[in-house]
Amino acid sequence: MKILLVGASGTMGSHLVNAWKNEHELITVGTKSGDIKADITSVDDIKKMYESVGSFDALVSTAGPSYVGPWKTLTPEVFKNGLNGKLLGQINLVLLGQDYINPNGSFTLITGGLTYEPQHFFANASAANGGVEAFVRAAAIELKKGVRINAVSPTVIENSPQYFDYFPGEIPTTMRALEFGFRKSVFGAKTGEIIKLY
Amino acid sequence: MKILLVGASGTMGSHLVNAWKNEHELITVGTKSGDIKADITSVDDIKKMYESVGSFDALVSTAGPSYVGPWKTLTPEVFKNGLNGKLLGQINLVLLGQDYINPNGSFTLITGGLTYEPQHFFANASAANGGVEAFVRAAAIELKKGVRINAVSPTVIENSPQYFDYFPGEIPTTMRALEFGFRKSVFGAKTGEIIKLY
Repeated sequence: MKILLVGASGTMGSHLVNAWKNEHELITVGTKSGDIKADITSVDDIKKMYESVGSFDALVSTAGPSYVGPWKTLTPEVFKNGLNGKLLGQINLVLLGQDYINPNGSFTLITGGLTYEPQHFFANASAANGGVEAFVRAAAIELKKGVRINAVSPTVIENSPQYFDYFPGEIPTTMRALEFGFRKSVFGAKTGEIIKLY
Repeated sequence: MKILLVGASGTMGSHLVNAWKNEHELITVGTKSGDIKADITSVDDIKKMYESVGSFDALVSTAGPSYVGPWKTLTPEVFKNGLNGKLLGQINLVLLGQDYINPNGSFTLITGGLTYEPQHFFANASAANGGVEAFVRAAAIELKKGVRINAVSPTVIENSPQYFDYFPGEIPTTMRALEFGFRKSVFGAKTGEIIKLY
């Protein structure tokens, strides 16, 4: 299976690369490294990425930049800019990628527990997650030719201990659970679902 | 109670105005009419509105512009612009209004069933709703001085029969249920909740 892995150099992405590289044809995408360099906050970068890749079977996104910082720093401008990555960037991966994906292919986006379990510093990420999740359900009834779409929703992940203190009471999602969540979306048959790992 | 009603000339807003005008001091806000003219897609308009109003006890928003149209017309630009109203406009009402609202005041935003019950033509509204709902939960843990925040979530509303065909299988939310949903948020004690009316 030809899988486009966006966010491949991140903590989640690099784990998936190691787990899947012997099973599938992976095309790694990152802002600064990877087979293709693309920043998902740029519509042009996404367009160029798809032109260069051509057809593919699955897109997996672990690219979720959003604004993290104290509530008092959330001006309208900061909030809006913070939605360009995890929310709009991932939506654009689907809107633009639907013309390139093979029939019966799949899109799997990243969201997270902050949709329902808010924490200080992460209001922007909560809004992005909630938007992505509702978009996934809406896109599932629109995509043609058997193309599926889901999102994987971990809480703070095992390999990011620097974030543990921001998520009191959240049992970290193991890398194994995360990988298997993506497996369920990419290799299973679900569509329009949020695969909740917390 | 001094209540700022944003979207007052719309189908939902005008119903609330009639229902509450003898009980409370209402300040009506609309894009083209009302005590104050303000377009919530404009950060400047929102700032001017609050400067002109000064302090208040409750903000009720029934202003939810988003993009409605066939999936194939959803370009990245259309999608992004479509989020400036229901999603970012309503978030900005809170980010900017928190400096003006009285202690123990409340914000009540509008969302809708499309968060969980997608329909053709409304993917943009689904994303906006999902973002608003997650934002409400996140803002509830950040707002100070007893200020509360909730969202009211109807499905297609009784007084908008022109939309019924877009919502097959949805029993329209009555105007009475809608009004009482807003009552629960504004005059009750909940915070961080989505008051689901479908």
